[in-house]
Amino acid sequence: MARYDIAIIGTGPGGISAAITARVRNKNIVLLGSRNLSDKLSRAHRIDNYPGLPQISGADFAQALRDQLAGLGIGITEKRVASVYAMGEYFMIQAGEDILEASSVILASGLAAGKTLPGELPLLGRGVSYCATCDARLYRGKTVAVLGYSDEAAAEAEFLSEIVQQVLFFPLGKTEPQERDNLRILREKPEAIEGETTVRGVRTAGGLCEADGVFVLRDSVAPDRLVPGLELTDGHVAVDLEMRTNLPGLFACGDITGKPYQYIKAAGQGNVAALSAVAWLRELQEKKEK
Amino acid sequence: MARYDIAIIGTGPGGISAAITARVRNKNIVLLGSRNLSDKLSRAHRIDNYPGLPQISGADFAQALRDQLAGLGIGITEKRVASVYAMGEYFMIQAGEDILEASSVILASGLAAGKTLPGELPLLGRGVSYCATCDARLYRGKTVAVLGYSDEAAAEAEFLSEIVQQVLFFPLGKTEPQERDNLRILREKPEAIEGETTVRGVRTAGGLCEADGVFVLRDSVAPDRLVPGLELTDGHVAVDLEMRTNLPGLFACGDITGKPYQYIKAAGQGNVAALSAVAWLRELQEKKEK
Repeated sequence: MARYDIAIIGTGPGGISAAITARVRNKNIVLLGSRNLSDKLSRAHRIDNYPGLPQISGADFAQALRDQLAGLGIGITEKRVASVYAMGEYFMIQAGEDILEASSVILASGLAAGKTLPGELPLLGRGVSYCATCDARLYRGKTVAVLGYSDEAAAEAEFLSEIVQQVLFFPLGKTEPQERDNLRILREKPEAIEGETTVRGVRTAGGLCEADGVFVLRDSVAPDRLVPGLELTDGHVAVDLEMRTNLPGLFACGDITGKPYQYIKAAGQGNVAALSAVAWLRELQEKKEK
Repeated sequence: MARYDIAIIGTGPGGISAAITARVRNKNIVLLGSRNLSDKLSRAHRIDNYPGLPQISGADFAQALRDQLAGLGIGITEKRVASVYAMGEYFMIQAGEDILEASSVILASGLAAGKTLPGELPLLGRGVSYCATCDARLYRGKTVAVLGYSDEAAAEAEFLSEIVQQVLFFPLGKTEPQERDNLRILREKPEAIEGETTVRGVRTAGGLCEADGVFVLRDSVAPDRLVPGLELTDGHVAVDLEMRTNLPGLFACGDITGKPYQYIKAAGQGNVAALSAVAWLRELQEKKEK
């Protein structure tokens, strides 16, 4: 398998800045994310404090970045990254149905969507799941709840209803599935996931909705779920001034590293992350030559 | 005496970014530095890795920044800052013959250039460069000299050799690159950089070593005597991720905080420094109200 020098995850200003600098430094990169760049960026009304681009709209800024990527021959690989594993000398990245390899990784996937629910993390893998495709079959003949934050949640719930006995769907995002006999929509706000050793159900103001499993379908995954072993501080990836994380060869930049959530900060950090990755690649090379 | 909320020292990308964000946050600021902005910036031949402004010349970038400052009503006070004293609740700044007061200070005065070689400054941007990442591509098919003072100089020279036709490396620090066909090590002491309108080469006791470009790669430059009590690391101002220094209320950003010396990094740090100063001002205010 071809191994990239640097895999960059995320197409906001942090990831794009990292990609630009890595490319200018002649590295063989793969940039993973949405071709529309970040939603947050494209939808920004006006950016007032990006030096050099006074009062630019989010849409115009996104276009400028897309043009710059194109000018440097940098493509965007539009795949959802499910996990990144540190293998020692390299990283394995599960992107859609593919497995990619890279000598270093820059994590620039933005803010992990919100807080987790009480009970969610303690019961993860004991009834709580983030992946319908992976875990649907565990619930044949049983009842599952779906907390539908992401755009794909409705489709995932419909898929689940083909396999499990009963799906309870909590619409928390923009999409809703078609109701069916075994797919009910519950318009209540989940407050917690309950259970001792395994899930008992979803707690709402109205009481407990019993379920054998709970699928929490968010747009982005918490960074330490994405990368097992990654150290966090207050829910953000812990980095030093060189944008190094606790995992050698893995760097992070942008909102995922914490406040302030600012475009120019993300772009600056992306540059630093790329140059730190370049230095890391050189170290790897030197070790091999010895 | 009127006391500014924030005094920003330096008009490179770090200081300007800090000024823009501080202004957008409605702070009463003074921006001290050269109205021509930094020399290094204005003379940069082309900047290849500033997200949103592909392949912009240093002069055009400087003009864009000047326009943006003007649009926000931010003037530049052209005074040389001789010293900054931490007085407890505020700072005293000796600027030219004036003494200014400010509740917080952002230090963005860049690298204090130590001794330079004869010819170095006059030919800056006309064949002399401080940044291999930025300018390597200008010398495709050409010969460049590298004055290797810094620890990273060897790596930079190897990177250059992937792009240009011939690299002549002068080892002046602790590291040396691997010699290759197109990367030669010259054990001579550079005495001057020669050229009229553009670089002709490096003068040594042995004669003129011809080159189309000269990369002067220095390590951290002289410690800053500007602020008594300021903590340094390896000759640079020690900062944390919020751009705080060891002196409460004093922040730093840009090249003065260390490598990499990159425009986009400086701009990102300037934004963070400004927002940290804003938070500091709020703390001061809260203390007073108690």
